[in-house]
Amino acid sequence: LMELTNERKGQATLTKDLQRLWYDLFMCDSLSLEEIAKLKREAATRGIYPDLEHYYLNREELMNYDLERVCKLIELWHDKGILYDRYNPKKLITDYIFSGLDTNGIFLHFEGFMKTIEILGTKEQKEKWLPKCLTLQSIGCYCQTEIGHGSDVQGLETTATYDVTAKEFVIHSPTVSSIKFWPGGLGKLSNHAVVQAQLYVKDKHYGVQTFIVPIRDEDHLPLEGIHVGDIGTKFGFNAEDNGFVKFTNIRIPRENLLSRYCQVSEDGTFTKESDNAIKLAYGNMLYLRLSIFFGRSVQFSRLATIGIRYSIVRRQFKDAETGEERQILDYQTQQYRLFPLLGISYAIRLAWVELQKLYSSFEAQTADGKQPLALLKDLHTLASCLKPLVTWRMRRFGEYVKQCCGGHGFLNVSGIHRIIKSEEGLVTAEGTNLVITQQTGRVLLGEAGKLAQGKRLEGITAFLNDHYNNTRKASNYSSINEIIVGAFESRVAFYLDYASKKFQKLIGEGIPMQTVWNEKVQQDFIDLSIYFADAFMLRTAFRQLEENKFVTSETKPVVEKCMQVYAIYC
Amino acid sequence: LMELTNERKGQATLTKDLQRLWYDLFMCDSLSLEEIAKLKREAATRGIYPDLEHYYLNREELMNYDLERVCKLIELWHDKGILYDRYNPKKLITDYIFSGLDTNGIFLHFEGFMKTIEILGTKEQKEKWLPKCLTLQSIGCYCQTEIGHGSDVQGLETTATYDVTAKEFVIHSPTVSSIKFWPGGLGKLSNHAVVQAQLYVKDKHYGVQTFIVPIRDEDHLPLEGIHVGDIGTKFGFNAEDNGFVKFTNIRIPRENLLSRYCQVSEDGTFTKESDNAIKLAYGNMLYLRLSIFFGRSVQFSRLATIGIRYSIVRRQFKDAETGEERQILDYQTQQYRLFPLLGISYAIRLAWVELQKLYSSFEAQTADGKQPLALLKDLHTLASCLKPLVTWRMRRFGEYVKQCCGGHGFLNVSGIHRIIKSEEGLVTAEGTNLVITQQTGRVLLGEAGKLAQGKRLEGITAFLNDHYNNTRKASNYSSINEIIVGAFESRVAFYLDYASKKFQKLIGEGIPMQTVWNEKVQQDFIDLSIYFADAFMLRTAFRQLEENKFVTSETKPVVEKCMQVYAIYC
Ligand SMILES: Cc1cc2nc3c(=O)[nH]c(=O)nc-3n(C[C@H](O)[C@H](O)[C@H](O)COP(=O)(O)OP(=O)(O)OC[C@H]3O[C@@H](n4cnc5c(N)ncnc54)[C@H](O)[C@@H]3O)c2cc1C
Ligand SMILES: Cc1cc2nc3c(=O)[nH]c(=O)nc-3n(C[C@H](O)[C@H](O)[C@H](O)COP(=O)(O)OP(=O)(O)OC[C@H]3O[C@@H](n4cnc5c(N)ncnc54)[C@H](O)[C@@H]3O)c2cc1C
Repeated sequence: LMELTNERKGQATLTKDLQRLWYDLFMCDSLSLEEIAKLKREAATRGIYPDLEHYYLNREELMNYDLERVCKLIELWHDKGILYDRYNPKKLITDYIFSGLDTNGIFLHFEGFMKTIEILGTKEQKEKWLPKCLTLQSIGCYCQTEIGHGSDVQGLETTATYDVTAKEFVIHSPTVSSIKFWPGGLGKLSNHAVVQAQLYVKDKHYGVQTFIVPIRDEDHLPLEGIHVGDIGTKFGFNAEDNGFVKFTNIRIPRENLLSRYCQVSEDGTFTKESDNAIKLAYGNMLYLRLSIFFGRSVQFSRLATIGIRYSIVRRQFKDAETGEERQILDYQTQQYRLFPLLGISYAIRLAWVELQKLYSSFEAQTADGKQPLALLKDLHTLASCLKPLVTWRMRRFGEYVKQCCGGHGFLNVSGIHRIIKSEEGLVTAEGTNLVITQQTGRVLLGEAGKLAQGKRLEGITAFLNDHYNNTRKASNYSSINEIIVGAFESRVAFYLDYASKKFQKLIGEGIPMQTVWNEKVQQDFIDLSIYFADAFMLRTAFRQLEENKFVTSETKPVVEKCMQVYAIYC
Repeated sequence: LMELTNERKGQATLTKDLQRLWYDLFMCDSLSLEEIAKLKREAATRGIYPDLEHYYLNREELMNYDLERVCKLIELWHDKGILYDRYNPKKLITDYIFSGLDTNGIFLHFEGFMKTIEILGTKEQKEKWLPKCLTLQSIGCYCQTEIGHGSDVQGLETTATYDVTAKEFVIHSPTVSSIKFWPGGLGKLSNHAVVQAQLYVKDKHYGVQTFIVPIRDEDHLPLEGIHVGDIGTKFGFNAEDNGFVKFTNIRIPRENLLSRYCQVSEDGTFTKESDNAIKLAYGNMLYLRLSIFFGRSVQFSRLATIGIRYSIVRRQFKDAETGEERQILDYQTQQYRLFPLLGISYAIRLAWVELQKLYSSFEAQTADGKQPLALLKDLHTLASCLKPLVTWRMRRFGEYVKQCCGGHGFLNVSGIHRIIKSEEGLVTAEGTNLVITQQTGRVLLGEAGKLAQGKRLEGITAFLNDHYNNTRKASNYSSINEIIVGAFESRVAFYLDYASKKFQKLIGEGIPMQTVWNEKVQQDFIDLSIYFADAFMLRTAFRQLEENKFVTSETKPVVEKCMQVYAIYC
């Protein structure tokens, strides 16, 4: 403790300023640091934080243990009147605590189940279901993935067949591989699910649509024809009840097809809005992916705290000159591995300010019935590479922190285990990184095509206009930050030029498009997508550092230095 | 299953040949494949393999569960009369099974505790203790690390003070940080420990020496003055009882100082052999580090099996041309991540043939009382980078395999979890990679100095003679393998040139040696050490591929291709 005090000497004000910035960037500027501390104390008093006991529980005990904490957290939200208030600062602060638990179930109820109804439901459907969601009378999960299909949503096999006579849909799992598998909250928690299924009306196929399906009765027992359970232990999220469900000819009323964008009339006529409308609607679900990006800032900061504090307190090997044992923080290799964590923690938050604005604007415009297609494309391109960027980097730096703490880091009580175990799942959940980065890659390939035709790009790829033609000279840069951002952007431009020419050349040789993509350039475009993500994050973060009203002349140089270190050693 | 049969079509003989080679390289050429299969079946019948149950156990249950299997394994060894027969092929094969368990305790009894006595004990001490070790009457652990010191062995604080009157040593833990912490087998299993402690005789300090200390009585209860227990849950090895022990003035007879190389006479006179003799003795402990290198071949091969088989069976996304869903193995990104596993599995085994020879020759020479110092240096240089090479690469490729199997890879039943969780500890155990790679780095720095003086190098660094002066031309290479090895060796030469010049330059500027090393070039020499390890492994493996009598004209091209893929995509 003395060692820590020593390191902090004379920096008390700066420490507070940095904390202030940390919360301000996350829309909590209306709460004082005292209020935040008080809130955390209250959470502690209510027993929401996990204690050491949980390291010794078996699976079942662990689920109960964490669930008890989730319930207490909901109580707290309820008591403060913020349960339904997504952007309330007190809600945001207490969400932190929640992300320290090993389960996501209740988050998926709100952001997966309820949000889907908000987006895809008609006015009547929302009036019927949302109040039940808010009072937790209906608890639901997001039921898309099946044993046989995850990334390829079009390949789902669950069927929803309209029975004209009964005016009902029949939800059915025709094969073993069609069994729904993975949804968080399905195994134990939920009594409802939104289910993706192939719609058939009068033997005609109308693609994948979304249905509300009750799965458990009032006593929380599975309904007839529902075979539901937990899928077993995992690398992480072991307090979460990721589940499976097999439907045997489950009948649900016609009204349970979420019908804002497509309808089946009583007599079995299928109608739908334009594809654009549906695409735009689904755009709202990008919030899940984006929130994984944001959430990593919290986890990175936790790792930074553990790794750096330990390296201050820990000493190993006598220094020949001073005769004292060296703080391990003074070894070059520790600094390379630990300091970038500070930079990325702040960079995510600074970039988030703009991402959040993009998303809110999208949300508002679609709510107004507008069609912001360009914005949707940008958001989709960003979500599909930013989530992979930070979750992959989390895997690498999490491992670094563990190793940097030596044997003690390998102990669960180091706290590192609890942080990084669930991270292992986030590279796969919400779209596996290896697949979704390709979506960004495809967009970039398209942009290269436009550039080749002499068109100018707009929005998030506009920076390529300059770089692509190498018109930017070193003398144009006026600060280190600009040089850094310029370097990251140049890497994108250079690599895109290389990869798209490689692609075109192979196409020119007559090799089928799919073969070229899947067997020749896939890895190039995945790499490119990550380069693009880093460039976006750093450009936005450095810009916010200049422009954001919460950044002060005291905090700026510190955060700037940390982000520079991140950029160089990431 | 049909898919797997399909992939294997026409390769039945090749498959057998490759299996044969796999075992031949591990000194099991005297066992037929049938005998090996029979042995595994017997192990299965005896209930030695873990089943799915263990994923649902809490810590205590898990320890019992795995321990039961360890006992059954020992029984098997006992029944076959191979318990004490380290290099018996049947022992080696069944060791595989053991490495699938989540505990190392019994391995550490044989290779840590007993081996230390073999190496550091006098003839009398060996006669007294080894039979007890072999019959498991004395079960011991290797007790070196303390809470406060791991990497820096000189910094250990446990004291052993000679009491001339009583003719006893007093073993004591003077501080909290001196408590022994981490030894595997200490928490529950052992009744003895070999303990490293600072020796004091008549107030004079004689450095760190090794003592046999009884810790539990015949009822397996802690002896008086011994405070011993388990250190808690970890990322992996949770069936293992890594433990702590605090000694309060424990008295042990004078005879318990392991005295082959240093003695304390009854009247308190300290004598010792030359430092070289002691260094040579410790060289025998390198086997532990080397065996971590070898053991990874088994784990890599398990990961390869899971990842590649799953990628054959799993299909995702319809191919526009064929209309069929693609096997995910056909995606470029899967191949980049999975195929190198095959190459490294065989490369380790091929390199092992030569390493094992080096080690055996060292063991034999020291047993003969010779002083093979150059050989010791080579073995130490190799062990300190080969163990880090494969354990670090295991972290990366283990993560790849998990991600390549999508959601199902994240489930524990995928089998991946059990394989890679303990690997997380091996980057730290037996010397953390971040520290021991520096030992190889220092040797290489020394070699650069010799080259600069125009000396020629011998042994494992001899390849630098050629490369360092860039005298080797592309036209000198006669095969792809040679080019690959040449490229890896050139990387070492180039980087060593760069790093040692950087080092010399900074020293020239008057910066103290320790500062230069710890703050300016540390990371360079760690990187270099890994480059060196890869070059060694590949050179040796490709050479063995040409020379090894077990390699046939059928297996050679396959293993060769796999190793080439590894070399390019590692
Ligand atoms: C912790 C966790 C929580 C989850 N929560 C939910 C939930 O609440 N609701 C829900 O519906 N689902 C959930 N899932 C499922 C998740 O959405 C899927 O796991 C994910 O979409 C990947 O699908 P898959 O597992 O079927 O992998 P697949 O699609 O089978 O892919 C497996 C692997 O094959 C390779 N691959 C596949 N296609 C390609 C390609 N085109 N190019 C290159 N390589 C390819 C990749 O390596 C990929 O990782 C969750 C998963 C996890 C791990
Ligand atoms: C699974 C497992 C099993 C083990 N089994 C045993 C056993 O049976 N018996 C036993 O005695 N011990 C055992 N250990 C302990 C092990 O030997 C030590 O953890 C290891 O030697 C590292 O020591 P430490 O943990 O004290 O780390 P420290 O020496 O404190 O090092 C911590 C970190 O500081 C940094 N660091 C330290 N020195 C330097 C430097 N010079 N340069 C750069 N960075 C530096 C590195 O990042 C290092 O990882 C085991 C450990 C594990 C994880």
